[in-house]
Amino acid sequence: MHQSGQPLFPLEAWRIREVGFSPAQNLLNETLFTVGNGYIGLRGGQDEGFFGAAGSSLDATFLNGFYDTESIHYPETAYGLAKTNQFMLNVPNAKRIRLWLDGESVDVLQGALHDYERVLDFQTGLMTRTLKWTSKTGQQVQIDSTRVVSLAHKHVFAVQYTVTALGFSGELVLESVLDGAVKNLAAGDDPRVGSHVSAPPLILQDTVQSGSYSALVHQTRNTGFGLVSAMDNQFSHSANRAVEASHAQQGESVAARFSTTLQAGESVTLTKFGAYFTSRDAAQSELLGLSQAALCEAVRNGFAALCAAQKTFLDKFWQQANVTIEGDDALCQGIHFNQFHLLQSMGRDGKTNISAKGVTGEGYEGHYFWDTEIYVFPFFLATQPDVARQLLRYRYNGLAAARNRAREMSHAKGALYPWRTIAGDECSAYFPAGTAQYHINADVAYSIKQYVEMTGDVAFLAEAGAEILMETARIWLGIGAYDAQDAARFCIFEVTGPDEYTAMVSNNFYTNAMAQMHLAYAAKVARQLQNDAPADFARVAAAMDLDVAEIDAWARAADCMYLAYDERLQIHPQDDGFLSKPVWDFAHTPAENYPLLLNYHPLVIYRHQVCKQADVVLALMLRGDQFTLDDKRRDFDYYEPITTHDSSLSACIFGIVASEIGYHERAYDFFMQTARMDIDNMHGNTQYGVHTAAMAGSWLGVVAGFAGMRLYDGALQFAPTLPARWTRYAFHVMVRGQRLSVTVEAGKVTYALHGDQALRLMHGAQEVLLGAHQCVAVLAMPL
Amino acid sequence: MHQSGQPLFPLEAWRIREVGFSPAQNLLNETLFTVGNGYIGLRGGQDEGFFGAAGSSLDATFLNGFYDTESIHYPETAYGLAKTNQFMLNVPNAKRIRLWLDGESVDVLQGALHDYERVLDFQTGLMTRTLKWTSKTGQQVQIDSTRVVSLAHKHVFAVQYTVTALGFSGELVLESVLDGAVKNLAAGDDPRVGSHVSAPPLILQDTVQSGSYSALVHQTRNTGFGLVSAMDNQFSHSANRAVEASHAQQGESVAARFSTTLQAGESVTLTKFGAYFTSRDAAQSELLGLSQAALCEAVRNGFAALCAAQKTFLDKFWQQANVTIEGDDALCQGIHFNQFHLLQSMGRDGKTNISAKGVTGEGYEGHYFWDTEIYVFPFFLATQPDVARQLLRYRYNGLAAARNRAREMSHAKGALYPWRTIAGDECSAYFPAGTAQYHINADVAYSIKQYVEMTGDVAFLAEAGAEILMETARIWLGIGAYDAQDAARFCIFEVTGPDEYTAMVSNNFYTNAMAQMHLAYAAKVARQLQNDAPADFARVAAAMDLDVAEIDAWARAADCMYLAYDERLQIHPQDDGFLSKPVWDFAHTPAENYPLLLNYHPLVIYRHQVCKQADVVLALMLRGDQFTLDDKRRDFDYYEPITTHDSSLSACIFGIVASEIGYHERAYDFFMQTARMDIDNMHGNTQYGVHTAAMAGSWLGVVAGFAGMRLYDGALQFAPTLPARWTRYAFHVMVRGQRLSVTVEAGKVTYALHGDQALRLMHGAQEVLLGAHQCVAVLAMPL
Repeated sequence: MHQSGQPLFPLEAWRIREVGFSPAQNLLNETLFTVGNGYIGLRGGQDEGFFGAAGSSLDATFLNGFYDTESIHYPETAYGLAKTNQFMLNVPNAKRIRLWLDGESVDVLQGALHDYERVLDFQTGLMTRTLKWTSKTGQQVQIDSTRVVSLAHKHVFAVQYTVTALGFSGELVLESVLDGAVKNLAAGDDPRVGSHVSAPPLILQDTVQSGSYSALVHQTRNTGFGLVSAMDNQFSHSANRAVEASHAQQGESVAARFSTTLQAGESVTLTKFGAYFTSRDAAQSELLGLSQAALCEAVRNGFAALCAAQKTFLDKFWQQANVTIEGDDALCQGIHFNQFHLLQSMGRDGKTNISAKGVTGEGYEGHYFWDTEIYVFPFFLATQPDVARQLLRYRYNGLAAARNRAREMSHAKGALYPWRTIAGDECSAYFPAGTAQYHINADVAYSIKQYVEMTGDVAFLAEAGAEILMETARIWLGIGAYDAQDAARFCIFEVTGPDEYTAMVSNNFYTNAMAQMHLAYAAKVARQLQNDAPADFARVAAAMDLDVAEIDAWARAADCMYLAYDERLQIHPQDDGFLSKPVWDFAHTPAENYPLLLNYHPLVIYRHQVCKQADVVLALMLRGDQFTLDDKRRDFDYYEPITTHDSSLSACIFGIVASEIGYHERAYDFFMQTARMDIDNMHGNTQYGVHTAAMAGSWLGVVAGFAGMRLYDGALQFAPTLPARWTRYAFHVMVRGQRLSVTVEAGKVTYALHGDQALRLMHGAQEVLLGAHQCVAVLAMPL
Repeated sequence: MHQSGQPLFPLEAWRIREVGFSPAQNLLNETLFTVGNGYIGLRGGQDEGFFGAAGSSLDATFLNGFYDTESIHYPETAYGLAKTNQFMLNVPNAKRIRLWLDGESVDVLQGALHDYERVLDFQTGLMTRTLKWTSKTGQQVQIDSTRVVSLAHKHVFAVQYTVTALGFSGELVLESVLDGAVKNLAAGDDPRVGSHVSAPPLILQDTVQSGSYSALVHQTRNTGFGLVSAMDNQFSHSANRAVEASHAQQGESVAARFSTTLQAGESVTLTKFGAYFTSRDAAQSELLGLSQAALCEAVRNGFAALCAAQKTFLDKFWQQANVTIEGDDALCQGIHFNQFHLLQSMGRDGKTNISAKGVTGEGYEGHYFWDTEIYVFPFFLATQPDVARQLLRYRYNGLAAARNRAREMSHAKGALYPWRTIAGDECSAYFPAGTAQYHINADVAYSIKQYVEMTGDVAFLAEAGAEILMETARIWLGIGAYDAQDAARFCIFEVTGPDEYTAMVSNNFYTNAMAQMHLAYAAKVARQLQNDAPADFARVAAAMDLDVAEIDAWARAADCMYLAYDERLQIHPQDDGFLSKPVWDFAHTPAENYPLLLNYHPLVIYRHQVCKQADVVLALMLRGDQFTLDDKRRDFDYYEPITTHDSSLSACIFGIVASEIGYHERAYDFFMQTARMDIDNMHGNTQYGVHTAAMAGSWLGVVAGFAGMRLYDGALQFAPTLPARWTRYAFHVMVRGQRLSVTVEAGKVTYALHGDQALRLMHGAQEVLLGAHQCVAVLAMPL
């Protein structure tokens, strides 16, 4: 919510629209108006830049997965701590434009601005801006610009920029800039923002200017990656007046400069295509050539074609992803905004993933976390299964690094995924809430299981999935053991669960529950592969030096997994010691002391019953078939009052479980905390980037929450409810290559299957068989 | 042990003697031959310096408690982490001498060396060196030098340096150097050594040269402390030949230069007095004047007087401190060496303490730890009670900082002592094995209780002790609580005990046992003061805003303190989760993987039953009256095999408890690991400084171990045993101002009391009353 308590933008389902320029909201709007394609991210800076007070703008450009490294220095070090950080780079700004009218520089903080409007449209994928600008001498022009980062062409973006003379007659100079004088934001003490960078990570190697093409060639300081940032500029005059074109170079920037004259009613248009290529995708020697070819093709096809391809791409996306909440434009806007940003942030090449702040900010340094598997993956799995597969390929590509990390952690066998990383190496510099979160292995395993069961793509198991599952399952035998005091009980020691307000405990409930699923599934997949595809099994077993006795050990550990239950409270303790600790004194904690992590020493937090986020409750959702509704209700009742939701990952999960146990008002409240979290800047830090996991959580809130979708061991189920304030909502999910559309209205639920294979699902307690080809079942709301 | 397995020095009870110069042992010998007085520490460098390979010398000078600060940078920070480190400085080297014979520089690595011998004598407190040196042209001189750091005069040291011409005739030039070009050792990755310093911490402000006096004036970079390093040089010629004296200055050093000629049989002598004063002791403007006055007085009294005062001081020290083990010069040498170094390292001014490596090295950055209270304090309490009192004054002076730290840790009341510090502020940069060691508060309380009961100095309670006890007791109510599942059980959550191979646990046995003692004693002292000295009580209560109901709360928490007992194993679990964890796989851990902390990630260590050092076993010793011998035997049997003794604090404690439970051979083995730990460099790192806690542990091994001395609630007891290899041993302890001498021989124990008050003690199960005035009791060895 804006500080005034009012939404920042009109409540329109398919776009955000800034009506009148708000300098005070500039930093926030730069985040919200980001355009990206999962690789390139252009924060929504003004075309001409914004030259306000320090900290009022971060007009950055990010390339997902493009990083430099720095050594991690610990003031008191220990063996095996992560040694090298990877951080996403702010790369040269290729979208910048400078404009002078009769020598007077045009920017949004100078002169007089009228009729300013900026739109980010989720259906066209374009950011458009229009404004009228009057100089100090009273001359007036209109500026219209459109910015697009191509969803169809990973490396390409474009800006079309038109200046129309209204009351103006005179000289116009326009520079299209490729600005290499960029740097990463220095971070403060907030542990959620990131660490310091000691020296500029990008070193300029060369500048190239040839015809309409310009490029900067950089190398990263420590990783030695090459980067080409390039642009091509086409300039036209409506009256075909003489244009003097030249190149300019200043410091680390290059520009194409166009000078001409303009009379009232005439206009000039710059069409600027930009491209980024790095040596993470191609040989360093090829980068310049690749950028020239990509820009050449873009110029030949033209700006309109790029926009048309964008629309085609998005039409297909929305056909599968669209969530409709009838009559509530605010919620539709919030959810569409979230879905659009997820698409913009998600790497789709198997080498990249989705960072905690997407490509909108440097927070968490562009690192990927478990957020992907547990929060974002389900959205893509249900709407863009090909993207989900690429996310699993990303983990498969990270297996070598995960094996190395396991060795550093003294595991003779197996693979341990990093808590936070870009390229696969552990980058967590605070291991109690980093490396100790071993549940990352189970989270990845869970996503594989869901993927295979939702898509039916069992071939993925032989290709990559089985190897991941088995290598990562081994770690549970490394960190767990049969209780030295009770040999029938498999325990997992010294881990941190999702709740980071408790650290380094034994038998964290979430970890044990997920490890149980992981071990059992790994054993099942191993045995299936052994039976069904012995050659594949032999290949994988050889690659990982598998002793087949290990498979039985996994199954046995799963069978004996200790899932504690407190008989007195009839709840699941979060860990072995949790329930003995005193409950946090919420009554005497002033509102300004939240989030607790910014106001209390970790030991103070750790020694209390207080949760940052869903932990047991998340296990209730992911492994919901293992628990009764009464279990879930009691656990929810116990943990909800002691959870601060200081993590943006929390509210959506509590909302989903609240739906399931019939706490409909609470569910709705939680949903409302996520649906518009970023668009209303509810956590007060969206100016530094969006919260991708919470964005996905809002989709989960509808589909897994109100509609109750679950996939348990391949069985798809729904248990739809209709929030009291709504009349109708609808969404789609892709199941085994077919689109299933679900519409929930008062008293009835409609399932429409678009495909040629029958589908069996549970509607509440009722089994439903949808025949092939547009079969529709209209059912009464389940009890 | 030397690498050859042979001792480095002849086995002489009262000295170490280097016979023949050993360049390979230079760094180690610099530690062993350190001379100090608890304030100044001069590492035992050669007078002329040692110019071998990099890392072969650290000819440093330390002033106990003189430090600079640096910001602690965490790669991932959190609220309340220690922000500023304090580190002991290497100050200007004022002992250095340079000598040229006919222009040829004399040092121990040039020319030919004969008849080299160096002695550090524990009775005279002098380091003396003699050698003959032959130049490349065959000219020979003898050099005799004596170095003393005055135990009687805190700020003063002296060197007497005589050059006698043997075959030599010619020109002699001698420079007495005050070398300011010193710096702290850059540290490597070993977490036990220390952290990096970014910029030179000492900034030269001025140089002063006047007559025989020279000084360097420095200021510390961040703390802004002033430092004056000064010297006075007296030069004499046996034949009264002409001497040309001048001052020299080069870079950051100054020197007094003496040129003369020497004929065979003649000699020259430099008598150099040095002094250090800092603004931690006096106003900055007074430092130069203080150094001039101190040196003037030293010169007037002369070198011999300084040595005589040293002998007088040490005679008194040894009268009370001497431990004799008849017929075992190796052990006598080891223990005397340890005692002498403890004296040399111990601050006696109430503003300083004893650092982990004394004044012999930079390891642990000159920080003070709990080592003082639990290991070193008992030695001084029993032999130099005035020094023990000063150690408690040190803690009293740190109470303000401890109150501040408690506030940072969200305690509204109370004081939390720092885990490691110089001036009182928390300097621990790894809180799981730092700030989490809350037992420091109980350790301080324990030392106060022992002090009062051993000395009878109850006035100390009203003066300082009660305030410390009560302020620090409050923290237990802050971090502990009645079990949320069992209201009769007071638990302490999220602490780390002495065993640093386990971290952040609930109900660490040592912590709970010591907190119980602390709470009960604080309540008892509070009530006594309230009754006996209401005015004092009122003053202290007002100073700490005490609610008298708090006193009852302390007593109740002590009564209800949870001291877990495992019925199945009949042992005390180290913490709530300890016994469920798997035991470390010692069988498959190669010898080179110890110490574990240098070869395994903390999480790997933490998740196993493996101890770095005594934890439960230490509680058995300190609170021994609370446990039966059978308890102790079972706990010892359980914990000893899973303890690596990777900490130098471990072996002595296990040895003491082994003695008590009748494991005499084991006790002897443990004792042998501490008695000569540094003199034989058994941990391989004495070159970087001695291990002061282990040194004190060797004294404890005799007195608390073999002789079984304990002081439980004021009752002194002995239970002497005689190791099979010994015929007789003897020691003294100071009890209520009187010296008690204890001699143990085959079959009999002699207690001799030097004082005028009767003393009651327990000899095994037998109560003994020693009358006043040299009363001697000769008793049979207890069963």
